[in-house]
Amino acid sequence: MKLATLNDGTRDGKLVVVSKDLTRFTDVSHIAPTMRDALDNWADVKKHLQNADQGLMVGSVPSERFHEHEVMAPLPRAAQWADGSAYVNHVELVRKARGAEMPQSFWEDPLMYMGAADAMLGARDAIPAGDEDWGIDLEAEVGVVVDDVPLGISPQDAADKILLVTILNDISFRSLIPGELAKGFGFLQSKGPTAFSPVAVTPDELGDAWHDGKLHLPILVQLDGELFGKADAGVDMTFDFPTLIAHAAKTRKLSAGTIIGSGTVSNKLDGGPGKPVGEGGVGYSCLAEIRTIETINSGKPETPFLGFGDMVRIEMNDTDGRSIFGAIEQVVVKV
Amino acid sequence: MKLATLNDGTRDGKLVVVSKDLTRFTDVSHIAPTMRDALDNWADVKKHLQNADQGLMVGSVPSERFHEHEVMAPLPRAAQWADGSAYVNHVELVRKARGAEMPQSFWEDPLMYMGAADAMLGARDAIPAGDEDWGIDLEAEVGVVVDDVPLGISPQDAADKILLVTILNDISFRSLIPGELAKGFGFLQSKGPTAFSPVAVTPDELGDAWHDGKLHLPILVQLDGELFGKADAGVDMTFDFPTLIAHAAKTRKLSAGTIIGSGTVSNKLDGGPGKPVGEGGVGYSCLAEIRTIETINSGKPETPFLGFGDMVRIEMNDTDGRSIFGAIEQVVVKV
Repeated sequence: MKLATLNDGTRDGKLVVVSKDLTRFTDVSHIAPTMRDALDNWADVKKHLQNADQGLMVGSVPSERFHEHEVMAPLPRAAQWADGSAYVNHVELVRKARGAEMPQSFWEDPLMYMGAADAMLGARDAIPAGDEDWGIDLEAEVGVVVDDVPLGISPQDAADKILLVTILNDISFRSLIPGELAKGFGFLQSKGPTAFSPVAVTPDELGDAWHDGKLHLPILVQLDGELFGKADAGVDMTFDFPTLIAHAAKTRKLSAGTIIGSGTVSNKLDGGPGKPVGEGGVGYSCLAEIRTIETINSGKPETPFLGFGDMVRIEMNDTDGRSIFGAIEQVVVKV
Repeated sequence: MKLATLNDGTRDGKLVVVSKDLTRFTDVSHIAPTMRDALDNWADVKKHLQNADQGLMVGSVPSERFHEHEVMAPLPRAAQWADGSAYVNHVELVRKARGAEMPQSFWEDPLMYMGAADAMLGARDAIPAGDEDWGIDLEAEVGVVVDDVPLGISPQDAADKILLVTILNDISFRSLIPGELAKGFGFLQSKGPTAFSPVAVTPDELGDAWHDGKLHLPILVQLDGELFGKADAGVDMTFDFPTLIAHAAKTRKLSAGTIIGSGTVSNKLDGGPGKPVGEGGVGYSCLAEIRTIETINSGKPETPFLGFGDMVRIEMNDTDGRSIFGAIEQVVVKV
């Protein structure tokens, strides 16, 4: 099942079920007016939503053309947003460029930060920034939306709490990060609002690509129309989603509608840093990583961060080349 | 105007207007079913809520007995929760005990962390913890609930965005903090769910005690029935609330229903560390602070953190000794 939130002028939008091929939708606001309502009552509404999905497939319910530019984030206001750094390769690389050692414990204990969940961006919303000097960067990630999760859940039990899967762009302001992290309390000003794909999907929709608590497909990143990255989200993911959920819930419960992110997808090929797509590599899911590799190789970064007017596109295709989530496509604009 | 959220079995509860003396309430769910709805549409509903408040005062609307133990948090699921450390004295003291220097910039640039906003506790809800070894601590604070705040707002303009004022208990797990902060991404497992007073009030309700973006009254803390702290929230608050709001909104907008916290209230009397209430001092708003002072004075902390069954009470009275917000009264329980 694929779900989206249409922009109807309200803060939480209107819930719709979208066809597998992302061309049609059927209004399900009589079942649950918003995604939030659906997640609040998932056990009760799931079956009704599935019936609507079946109806959409066989043409027995009213449907309309689905346009990706008409959506909000699937959850415009999420219960909570906690983002992991499951691709430890990425963390190690970024630290290396800064000249900072990565503690060995990072391979066993997930790194995770709390973000703002109150103003999630839709797939075509602009990336708002006040200044190019902030070091505007994308971060292409996978995320899961969970049901209510009790305090102290095990990773085994956490696997069953994953209701929806999505891809996302965790916008970072790199130039603000060192000063803010040095203060010791984590990210606040150095993270912009997070953007999500047009649809979120139930795990069964991913077929064989979803196993072991990971999504085993490349995440495709384009910058200004050029392919920049195609790292496989199932490769080098040190902590799977159930482990990340259990980490977030170790000392407090999570409410339904909490989103847990994977962190920037990053593959460590052949034991060394990744190569650009043009040189036969899988490329990158953020600019910080290529700048890091440039710094390691030649002493300084060459690729600039995003500027006003630059366009980021993030997508994921199934093994037949069909878009699963629709595309995140954002232009950076000055606010 | 005083507002509360009654527990009606739903996730967001039911909005009511409460009398000044906290003895009666009138149902306003026909105006806005929940606090969240009211804040989403504050400009439209404020006048209607004020009319209900007037009606409650003169007895022209139906009312019922208000019981503090029947409430949820005013905003059980807030849009966002960002907590400052505006009482820099507290930050300096806690660091001193750890043997860590505090950067001079902390006096000019607010320290603030992102917390979880999805499961706020009501005033009588238990403090859930898995283990006493977590170092369970209270933090008595003042908080403000804001309207929509645009990216890049000035402190001057931010003052007008404060819709409600509340007091709160920012539960911390002190033993988990050093390890987590060392990882560099801020608090996640080391913060429990935050608890709020029975009512939140509009700033006008505070009269002369609300000026210069601060609440000028002592915050009263009892531990197991003994007065432990009465630090004045208006004293030694280095950053006022408008400054904290502007800090949180520097690189992204804040949605209506965002809560900004003051950090643990702490007074620096006569240029030295605070004295216990029993010795003529104002005492403390958290256990970490007295333990810090004990460490500075005698090399090690003597006061233990909270144990299962311990009771925390946080309240604030007006100059006539009447409770403004009702009391937070929580017992620590094992989960």
